[in-house]
Amino acid sequence: MSANSFGKLLTVTTFGESHGPAIGCVVDGCPPGLALAADEFAHDLQRRATGKSRHTSARREADEVEILSGVYEGRTTGTPIALLIRNIDQRSKDYSAIAAQFRPGHADYSYWQKYGIRDPRGGGRSSARETTMRVAAGVIAKKWLRERHGVSVRGWLSQLGGITPRGFDWSAVEANPFFWPDAAQVPELEAYMDALRKSGDSVGARVHVVADGVPPGWGEPIYGKLDGEIAAALMSINAVKGVEIGDGFASAAQKGTEHRDLITPDGFQSNHAGGILGGIATGQQIVASMVLKPTSSLRLPGATVDVDGQPVDVITTGRHDPCVGIRATPIAEAMLALVLMDQALRHRAQCGDVGDVAPRVPGRLDG
Amino acid sequence: MSANSFGKLLTVTTFGESHGPAIGCVVDGCPPGLALAADEFAHDLQRRATGKSRHTSARREADEVEILSGVYEGRTTGTPIALLIRNIDQRSKDYSAIAAQFRPGHADYSYWQKYGIRDPRGGGRSSARETTMRVAAGVIAKKWLRERHGVSVRGWLSQLGGITPRGFDWSAVEANPFFWPDAAQVPELEAYMDALRKSGDSVGARVHVVADGVPPGWGEPIYGKLDGEIAAALMSINAVKGVEIGDGFASAAQKGTEHRDLITPDGFQSNHAGGILGGIATGQQIVASMVLKPTSSLRLPGATVDVDGQPVDVITTGRHDPCVGIRATPIAEAMLALVLMDQALRHRAQCGDVGDVAPRVPGRLDG
Amino acid sequence: MSANSFGKLLTVTTFGESHGPAIGCVVDGCPPGLALAADEFAHDLQRRATGKSRHTSARREADEVEILSGVYEGRTTGTPIALLIRNIDQRSKDYSAIAAQFRPGHADYSYWQKYGIRDPRGGGRSSARETTMRVAAGVIAKKWLRERHGVSVRGWLSQLGGITPRGFDWSAVEANPFFWPDAAQVPELEAYMDALRKSGDSVGARVHVVADGVPPGWGEPIYGKLDGEIAAALMSINAVKGVEIGDGFASAAQKGTEHRDLITPDGFQSNHAGGILGGIATGQQIVASMVLKPTSSLRLPGATVDVDGQPVDVITTGRHDPCVGIRATPIAEAMLALVLMDQALRHRAQCGDVGDVAPRVPGRLDG
Amino acid sequence: MSANSFGKLLTVTTFGESHGPAIGCVVDGCPPGLALAADEFAHDLQRRATGKSRHTSARREADEVEILSGVYEGRTTGTPIALLIRNIDQRSKDYSAIAAQFRPGHADYSYWQKYGIRDPRGGGRSSARETTMRVAAGVIAKKWLRERHGVSVRGWLSQLGGITPRGFDWSAVEANPFFWPDAAQVPELEAYMDALRKSGDSVGARVHVVADGVPPGWGEPIYGKLDGEIAAALMSINAVKGVEIGDGFASAAQKGTEHRDLITPDGFQSNHAGGILGGIATGQQIVASMVLKPTSSLRLPGATVDVDGQPVDVITTGRHDPCVGIRATPIAEAMLALVLMDQALRHRAQCGDVGDVAPRVPGRLDG
Repeated sequence: MSANSFGKLLTVTTFGESHGPAIGCVVDGCPPGLALAADEFAHDLQRRATGKSRHTSARREADEVEILSGVYEGRTTGTPIALLIRNIDQRSKDYSAIAAQFRPGHADYSYWQKYGIRDPRGGGRSSARETTMRVAAGVIAKKWLRERHGVSVRGWLSQLGGITPRGFDWSAVEANPFFWPDAAQVPELEAYMDALRKSGDSVGARVHVVADGVPPGWGEPIYGKLDGEIAAALMSINAVKGVEIGDGFASAAQKGTEHRDLITPDGFQSNHAGGILGGIATGQQIVASMVLKPTSSLRLPGATVDVDGQPVDVITTGRHDPCVGIRATPIAEAMLALVLMDQALRHRAQCGDVGDVAPRVPGRLDG
Repeated sequence: MSANSFGKLLTVTTFGESHGPAIGCVVDGCPPGLALAADEFAHDLQRRATGKSRHTSARREADEVEILSGVYEGRTTGTPIALLIRNIDQRSKDYSAIAAQFRPGHADYSYWQKYGIRDPRGGGRSSARETTMRVAAGVIAKKWLRERHGVSVRGWLSQLGGITPRGFDWSAVEANPFFWPDAAQVPELEAYMDALRKSGDSVGARVHVVADGVPPGWGEPIYGKLDGEIAAALMSINAVKGVEIGDGFASAAQKGTEHRDLITPDGFQSNHAGGILGGIATGQQIVASMVLKPTSSLRLPGATVDVDGQPVDVITTGRHDPCVGIRATPIAEAMLALVLMDQALRHRAQCGDVGDVAPRVPGRLDG
Repeated sequence: MSANSFGKLLTVTTFGESHGPAIGCVVDGCPPGLALAADEFAHDLQRRATGKSRHTSARREADEVEILSGVYEGRTTGTPIALLIRNIDQRSKDYSAIAAQFRPGHADYSYWQKYGIRDPRGGGRSSARETTMRVAAGVIAKKWLRERHGVSVRGWLSQLGGITPRGFDWSAVEANPFFWPDAAQVPELEAYMDALRKSGDSVGARVHVVADGVPPGWGEPIYGKLDGEIAAALMSINAVKGVEIGDGFASAAQKGTEHRDLITPDGFQSNHAGGILGGIATGQQIVASMVLKPTSSLRLPGATVDVDGQPVDVITTGRHDPCVGIRATPIAEAMLALVLMDQALRHRAQCGDVGDVAPRVPGRLDG
Repeated sequence: MSANSFGKLLTVTTFGESHGPAIGCVVDGCPPGLALAADEFAHDLQRRATGKSRHTSARREADEVEILSGVYEGRTTGTPIALLIRNIDQRSKDYSAIAAQFRPGHADYSYWQKYGIRDPRGGGRSSARETTMRVAAGVIAKKWLRERHGVSVRGWLSQLGGITPRGFDWSAVEANPFFWPDAAQVPELEAYMDALRKSGDSVGARVHVVADGVPPGWGEPIYGKLDGEIAAALMSINAVKGVEIGDGFASAAQKGTEHRDLITPDGFQSNHAGGILGGIATGQQIVASMVLKPTSSLRLPGATVDVDGQPVDVITTGRHDPCVGIRATPIAEAMLALVLMDQALRHRAQCGDVGDVAPRVPGRLDG
């Protein structure tokens, strides 16, 4: 499968460069009959969009989604759903100065080495602009999961630089521009980000994403594991440098008696596993998290070389987020939703006739 | 692609259950002409094998590899290479008592929910026995990478419970049963493991794996990213709960000026990125790590339910590792090698004629 | 891989319905550095287009291709190339009468059974309108094959109803609206088609397509055979009911001494095999042909049922080709070119280092 | 996907050379709970086997199948099913003389050009020996189709050289070594084959294969068409040079009113389409046929060159079928069964919830 396609039975293929004419995607494999309208994409795209607060890039992304195919009289038909967004606020001139230089921490150098040619305008294909289409595709997956299976996918920012949440309240998450679960900390975050922006520097962050209502049995063993695919999905997001499932790296120092989730007739007694055993969902909440490195586009000069190998100092003058992690929450949600919908289709392909075979545990252990 | 296959152009398909007649794999896509003999698998299989010290499972795995196809007069022919290992020391009776119970922390429950049927002998397909074939396939990938591209792949144990290495010496790693890089700490590790084994409990661990000599340009963008594929590969190993590239989760608290790797005509000045930018290798050392949860198979009783939903206490009396992480180092190496060889083939497929197109940076920036 | 994607390393994903807002495709995996401009698509699209003579559908397809991504300063960059064509002459009202009926010989009934919903406007996704994007993608493949490997792909109409060519002249093929290789027969064909159109009936046809200059070694064994992939590619074209390689069905009555192509130091002495042995190119001309059934859209009434299972007579009043085979020549060329380019990339992935291994036959046997 | 793997959700990977230690396959994606025992493979393997009459190769293939994995207590578990057959009657010395020569009509030359190395013993990987594992895998698919969906797959020899069946009787097909549907012609066929064998020459043949009971809706559009996949599957069989669906090449000379299958409330009135419209099953009988070229292994000398490009006369002295088509019937059945099972799984993945969407035609039109 191509490097620009994701998923096995629900396949998303994205295309487009940051400053090209348009970005878009083709979502293939969606079951027929799902109600879908162009205005359903606005909510999540707005959550991901730049320019919605002073803490994210000033680039304005209107991001009107056009449905080009796959929907007839308001319902999906089973044929590929193509989505298109025209790029309107491109300002390519911002980037002309750095076309022959490799910005440190960016894909400039590695793309150049790979392809011998690159589109330098706004990072071209390597820009996080691509994630807009992941969020759009994720809207379809989220809706199908919710309507067909009662599954919900949600995320929050769980670390910003050195700051972590003190409390947790779902209602807070959508009420501030940081997706932060403790409303009381928002002024602190705003002050931190204002100082950071002023300094010209950037900072890393961490995002958690969970899915509730996933039936036991979704996922595949060995190389198609649910956790393996979540890891690939989250790590494929720009700037992500690490992924955890359940207790993640804390597991290294845990004892077996501490980590294992005991089971009673009323369900699991804990969820250190993050809802996945042997690559397959247990019916508990799926819990994953990822870390994003600090933005590499800085207006503080940094040493690099140009395409002739000569040393230069580079300054990135375009509009950039001082913390790319802030806008990553809806992207992580989208990727988790796409993985889950794909696995749901795969599960019913192989195990759609399991009922004929053997009784399964009566009741669901969702602890 | 099937859940039991890994890789796009170098495809490894494994099969077999822990206590079935045999385990095996089919390695497809290996270029022709690589010298390969059956005795070349012994070294890495021995490194992974149980029973080589008192700190790992007492199950004896002789693990003689038979090459069934794909090699003629000592060289690969380009056709699929099938490898077979007969299971000889199975002791299935150890497991009969728990066939109708779901061991906490194991895949018993999730497999049962998915398939409605499972092979309970030694965990069946979900056993880490499967990783034997990953190591065998990895031997081929390591050799090809070394001979054709001068790439080496190596790993070490970087955390055992709460213990981390104080020093680092490659020569120490292969000289103790823990793959530990500081020889002075080995007595401490042995005492820790002896006490742990006596207590009946288990502990988690962490493994680092690196590749040296990877040319800039290997890797693909977006959903075929080198780091995304490494994440999927490592997370697919039994018991792994987290993956990092380069600085990993530490990036959350870093500033952009701290994380970005500056470039000079002499190369990169640091390697926070772990050798990958935008999903594509920069020519620096590739650095990844993973965490393994503590073994769930314990002789300390744990609460669970049986297939009728009734509460039971389960004790696992088979032979198990008190720390599965110890033997995971060669598995992580194998997975990284398989990812790299696959990406190498993909790179020359798409970019094999890049030389015709544009000059690339003279010299290689390998910092 | 999704049903709307074609190819393994050069992957073409198409989308769009006959009367939706647009049709398009994403071409992924094209090597970087190929010169490409939007006006290069016009020639082949015009060859495929309806409305260019009175012998094809009167629907006017202006078919302006917009390149949305993957090209920078006139060259491919290695990122996905998205192509878009807006549908402009749709006349959906023509089809409203048959939305609830299943036209015999069409996909109406099978789509309805599969999806439970269908876009009836012009056949929706099952319309041959989709092949426009195959031709567009094929333009890229043809150019790459020609420029990088000197491979040319050409086709002609080799049967129209009961009529077959008496002579063969490449220069004739492009000089008449039938892609017919004998100019002297063109008046006969025109009279035949005029009478057919008047009768309201339609007729089948046959198309040959060949590739010259394909290097020996392209193709893969077993399930990735070059001839297997050509068969899949041609059979996937609307209305195709059969595919042949080389001597095809005539082989059934041949003797081994008659069919086998003898080899001398000057090359092969014949080409019954159609340039492929064991699924791999021999270096001779690749020869394939396909048959297209007569158009099912007729203004002569035909018995069918409606969505309630009630009997009705259906008449198709839209604009349709009395012989779909006439316009199929450029489509067949495109599919062969896509298969060859994909196989070329696969070959250099696996066998790019064959030169290191063993000497191959000096000189090329291209008979 | 690798060239040695077939299918998307039911994936068959084969391995092994004609005269290597063993041949085998891995069948992945089979739903759990299917009863399966090692002795179920014997019937179809015996139908395909050489040495069962004087009209096929004298090589004895005992072909005992060992199930290495994926079956527990007589039922499939959902994990990969590995099947192994040891090669026992290899006589490699027969082939030593031709290791440095390219037999005309064989894959010797093209493999050599591709890989620079080849296993010359019995044709190595390019031998029809590989089809043994297709037949074995097909046994699983046939059984699942029959038990879960009431689908049957059957074939017959429909042309031998210039001879075609005069009558048709299913009961005759399995009662003679030719799979010939007219018992009265068997003496004629035997005389023909005896003369042919005596002459040292070989002849081509044609095989038909049909599936009854396939539900409408199986199959996918565009590049995943049921007919496209059947074409690829049949064309991938050794020696096949052409494939037809339904009326096939006869469609070229048909009128639309003649070819289209009219529909009444009692079902389709004919089956020119071969049970497939728009790539999707209509519920009628699926009808496909394929042509096999005459065996290229002849004891009549033929001109060729050796690996140094020098002219030589080659004689193939091994044991070969004078008509490979005779044994191809069970292979064609296996491939059709594998395609159908794969499509069945794909259909329930995407359209498993179609019932929720819209009513479909009451009753099934199976004409």
